[in-house]
Amino acid sequence: MKAIAVNKLHDFAEKALVEIGMSAQDARTVADVLVTTDTFGVLSHGTKNLLGYVQKIQASGLKANAEPAVAAEGPAWAIVDGNEAIGMVTASFAMNKAIEKARQCGVAYVGVRNSCHFGAAGYYANMAAREGMVGLAMSNTDPIMAVPNGCRVSIGSNPFSYAAPTGDGKSVFLDVALSNVAALKVVMAKEKGAQVPAEWLIDENGRHTSDPSTFPEHSCLSPMAAHKGYGLAVMVELLASVVTGAGLLSEVPSWNLKLETPNNVGHAFIAIDVTKMIPADMFYARMARMAQELRSAPKAEGVDRIYMPGEMEWDKREKALAENRLELTDVMASNLEKLSAMTGVAIEWL
Amino acid sequence: MKAIAVNKLHDFAEKALVEIGMSAQDARTVADVLVTTDTFGVLSHGTKNLLGYVQKIQASGLKANAEPAVAAEGPAWAIVDGNEAIGMVTASFAMNKAIEKARQCGVAYVGVRNSCHFGAAGYYANMAAREGMVGLAMSNTDPIMAVPNGCRVSIGSNPFSYAAPTGDGKSVFLDVALSNVAALKVVMAKEKGAQVPAEWLIDENGRHTSDPSTFPEHSCLSPMAAHKGYGLAVMVELLASVVTGAGLLSEVPSWNLKLETPNNVGHAFIAIDVTKMIPADMFYARMARMAQELRSAPKAEGVDRIYMPGEMEWDKREKALAENRLELTDVMASNLEKLSAMTGVAIEWL
Repeated sequence: MKAIAVNKLHDFAEKALVEIGMSAQDARTVADVLVTTDTFGVLSHGTKNLLGYVQKIQASGLKANAEPAVAAEGPAWAIVDGNEAIGMVTASFAMNKAIEKARQCGVAYVGVRNSCHFGAAGYYANMAAREGMVGLAMSNTDPIMAVPNGCRVSIGSNPFSYAAPTGDGKSVFLDVALSNVAALKVVMAKEKGAQVPAEWLIDENGRHTSDPSTFPEHSCLSPMAAHKGYGLAVMVELLASVVTGAGLLSEVPSWNLKLETPNNVGHAFIAIDVTKMIPADMFYARMARMAQELRSAPKAEGVDRIYMPGEMEWDKREKALAENRLELTDVMASNLEKLSAMTGVAIEWL
Repeated sequence: MKAIAVNKLHDFAEKALVEIGMSAQDARTVADVLVTTDTFGVLSHGTKNLLGYVQKIQASGLKANAEPAVAAEGPAWAIVDGNEAIGMVTASFAMNKAIEKARQCGVAYVGVRNSCHFGAAGYYANMAAREGMVGLAMSNTDPIMAVPNGCRVSIGSNPFSYAAPTGDGKSVFLDVALSNVAALKVVMAKEKGAQVPAEWLIDENGRHTSDPSTFPEHSCLSPMAAHKGYGLAVMVELLASVVTGAGLLSEVPSWNLKLETPNNVGHAFIAIDVTKMIPADMFYARMARMAQELRSAPKAEGVDRIYMPGEMEWDKREKALAENRLELTDVMASNLEKLSAMTGVAIEWL
């Protein structure tokens, strides 16, 4: 374990990206997405992957200076071409477009093609929540999950996220892979040499396995709740790829195992400007009433707290910001050290 | 088991509803929703519940002649007040409104309050698919599910559905409760005296139980994939109730156990006119390619077929329509016989 100040990590990420040729504004966007994700406690999807993104830029699978652009649009929708820019820049651009259009029409859908791994979907859903809207964010990924009755990777774990504003600067939000667990969590267990719950993985014979060392070459993720997670993953594939023209299923390579290949992953964002439909104070009062009722439900034995979706993540973020401190695993720290050596940007540990 | 011709079941449902005071058009809508659901093989959500809806009308918890109306609207959204009309009429009205607005703006959200149990969400998602659009349909329900760390009913199983057109008159679609299983399936097991998988139910001590006779008085449903199903159920509560002003959580009574009480459940519908964003022939070609790739995935031992979401349901519907025959359980048949006796409308079995 190594600890780092939140603001120092942000500075490091930003400077390292500028050093490898990214504009100051785009570097700030990427740093904000990744460090915010770390503060939410979602370490598998934050600055841990910064080295990989930089290596992908150096291998020409990503373009440091490309900018996303609107390829087609209507009153309440747009299709954005990421032009092989880094996923965080394209996804932020697309969600901002959805927010702008929802402010006019009440709701908007923005689909994206030619993008790359965008980090944690929840960041983008929360962008809408910060603007007082309900946001949905999703992405297809390289096939990493078996389908029911299958025994090989056939579809992505296709993350799905939503966020809703609560009027207090936080949000109610969920950010989940549609597999039983996110691929990057299996990778983290593999790095630690730990076992995983058997329902997470399916081996080449279609059996469950708890050995993450087999992943991803000889095992794949299982869909959340069997046909339900499979059906939802197909919905995400549809909205993020079929509609947008992004890589479809096997056309999407692993972003980090195929560094030299453009990822061409697709995303989908929906923003709903709920306070057009109900006065803001009434919306927030109803959100608070929902939270109050759920939090005060009778508790199972040995349990002293019921959480709203996203509440654990907001607790972690508050703590990290208050202490200005994040604890990173050795693999994460080592990745950042490598990036420091590569770019000449110093990293300062606590 | 008793068998009935599909068209005779439709005629019976329609005539029985007209007999108790519903307009011919509304009766046709309700019959179409329920019989279509039966043909998809989702017997728990079809004409099985017709007797209950009629009893609820007679108990003044539903109004046979009320009509839903738009309470507020914008370019790409509307809030519909169901005015205590039967759920199928209000939900069909609302999804048609979403389709109409999506044809203008590309996407639309319609939320509903003052409605009642709408049957199977998948019917409404498929209305959009029939118009060449992607449709989403969801509803809150009376609290029937525990939340993670809880041990009593706290939130509905909040069904979520989507459908996407395939260009051949069918669709890819999913219609799921966000509990591990739909409440009406536990009720069917209880009626048969069967046990259920233990992960379906949580007893009053927070433990799993496989005895459906305890449901719903002394046990509740468990959320699908724990925090994931919980988080998604909160999203549905948000879009179907917080935004619309429908009953929130404990404000929603059981539609069939509290016959005399208006249900005031809320729904949410989203329509996305995808062929504005991609040429129709290209969309259908990409849908077909996705299906072809998933269906041809390597199969687990002993398995000879991989299904697309909704494919099993379409197979059942094709068979039922080709044979003009549906097999109903004794409870279902007995419900319809009771309704026949009550309304004087004859029912004709095969």
